[in-house]
Amino acid sequence: MTTYKERVRNSFSKQAFMSTLGAELTEVIQGGVQIRLPFSPNLPQQNGYLHAGAIAAVLDSACGYAALTPAADDKGVLTAEFKVNLLAPASGEVFAAKAQVKKAGRTVTVCTADAFAISDGREKLVATMLSTIMAVPITPAKKQTSAHSLALRCVPTGP
Amino acid sequence: MTTYKERVRNSFSKQAFMSTLGAELTEVIQGGVQIRLPFSPNLPQQNGYLHAGAIAAVLDSACGYAALTPAADDKGVLTAEFKVNLLAPASGEVFAAKAQVKKAGRTVTVCTADAFAISDGREKLVATMLSTIMAVPITPAKKQTSAHSLALRCVPTGP
Amino acid sequence: MTTYKERVRNSFSKQAFMSTLGAELTEVIQGGVQIRLPFSPNLPQQNGYLHAGAIAAVLDSACGYAALTPAADDKGVLTAEFKVNLLAPASGEVFAAKAQVKKAGRTVTVCTADAFAISDGREKLVATMLSTIMAVPITPAKKQTSAHSLALRCVPTGP
Amino acid sequence: MTTYKERVRNSFSKQAFMSTLGAELTEVIQGGVQIRLPFSPNLPQQNGYLHAGAIAAVLDSACGYAALTPAADDKGVLTAEFKVNLLAPASGEVFAAKAQVKKAGRTVTVCTADAFAISDGREKLVATMLSTIMAVPITPAKKQTSAHSLALRCVPTGP
Repeated sequence: MTTYKERVRNSFSKQAFMSTLGAELTEVIQGGVQIRLPFSPNLPQQNGYLHAGAIAAVLDSACGYAALTPAADDKGVLTAEFKVNLLAPASGEVFAAKAQVKKAGRTVTVCTADAFAISDGREKLVATMLSTIMAVPITPAKKQTSAHSLALRCVPTGP
Repeated sequence: MTTYKERVRNSFSKQAFMSTLGAELTEVIQGGVQIRLPFSPNLPQQNGYLHAGAIAAVLDSACGYAALTPAADDKGVLTAEFKVNLLAPASGEVFAAKAQVKKAGRTVTVCTADAFAISDGREKLVATMLSTIMAVPITPAKKQTSAHSLALRCVPTGP
Repeated sequence: MTTYKERVRNSFSKQAFMSTLGAELTEVIQGGVQIRLPFSPNLPQQNGYLHAGAIAAVLDSACGYAALTPAADDKGVLTAEFKVNLLAPASGEVFAAKAQVKKAGRTVTVCTADAFAISDGREKLVATMLSTIMAVPITPAKKQTSAHSLALRCVPTGP
Repeated sequence: MTTYKERVRNSFSKQAFMSTLGAELTEVIQGGVQIRLPFSPNLPQQNGYLHAGAIAAVLDSACGYAALTPAADDKGVLTAEFKVNLLAPASGEVFAAKAQVKKAGRTVTVCTADAFAISDGREKLVATMLSTIMAVPITPAKKQTSAHSLALRCVPTGP
């Protein structure tokens, strides 16, 4: 028996890509997750701003884990799709991706998330996400890895 | 005077994040761009599949540069927004993001892109993107960096 | 035992909103559906073009029914979400919404669709959709109404 | 010189499709618009719920007009794209689409909107939209029709 916070933290720690980016899981509450990403020279696009793919990555992980918080203990979650709007140049010392559950369901959970660039202690909204996340059963073998991207393997391959 | 291929290649080479991922620009034609991303242990989510954020990153860059190919020489492009559907587990040796212009315009260009996982020479569709890209004027100072994410700085900050 | 064509046609005939719009189901093949909408003075926005909501409606029904064609006989489908890009002014005598399955799955099917404005026999692309559709079990009582929007009632209401 | 409320109300009154649906503009404030749609037998899909296209129509108009409120007097707005998530069966006596500006800009404004089904005075969230709206110049001839769908005609037709 694990708490939702443990399930989220365990899974996040296995996301090698979050580690590659340098992202940290900074808050897990029921229905909400925050991930922080310090700026680094490895992350920009050609003008020195954070690449939209890096923003999308932390927003997606934040949404997936927000959706995991209300899920049953034997369920994992997967991202079916997401949309991101880029609202302002992603320039800052640190970025915060804050996700919340918009509508939780047994099968489908919809989340929203905002990304903020933080400079001199001030937050500026730079992106927003609306995403659709599926709950999937975790077989015993998969249980320790229950988490948001795993479930991709459960997308069926057709009729 | 630069050709569209040079403009795309110059800008891509400045995207530090593409280099961090290990992505390569493998094809630039009028209206279409392909980017390849070899799998590496730095890129997975918790189950060993390519993280959705890494997929989104190469799809987004591919779409942005596809939109740049028909643009006037004094225009750069920016991603306003994109949507990604994750269609199957992203498991493979190499991933190919193939973008094409759906509708080119003076101000707004819409692109689609598919991501394929390649294993043993076989391609499997794993994700698809639909994105909206804005053309933005390049001032002389910015000209050498004309490219798809730069334009984010041009998103106006309000009324 | 009904064929997929019968299931699609039966359900379409029950969509009062399609009838209100004046839309007709003009083609049903495995993995693809076409709906036609003649222009009428009831459908415009303020400048006389077809309202984006009317375009979205026929694109959504076309996607839902395309997703229904490969589904098992005891499954209905529901739209979880869709994105539409409006590509050109929707001005024409007739509009054609052409949907196809991008990726069929047991639970999730992803479809794309294009909308064309037809004038003097020439087609012009005016919109494109990318949508996510869920398969849902049909209970015997619901069987005769198996179709794409029904499933909305199956979206679970929370943890 | 017209106020933003007048500009929104004038344009809304010209949207024949809103009248066909039976939708009413019930609130216009700076940065926010509400549209109400009473249920009618003309609007359902095959199970008696409000068709997703009807929901999308009122959400789209609400977003477009929310984006118009902060725009300069010589600007109209157009929907470039929107995404809708359908969260619950759209069953109710009346539906309320409530849109607000997420990020206003000179060229691009991003809006969010929620749709609620109202029964016995209780509101239930049934859908949510994230949309991208473009500001476009209004030429004198077009000035009286400045509004959110008009601008579609300004989407350029290619390079």
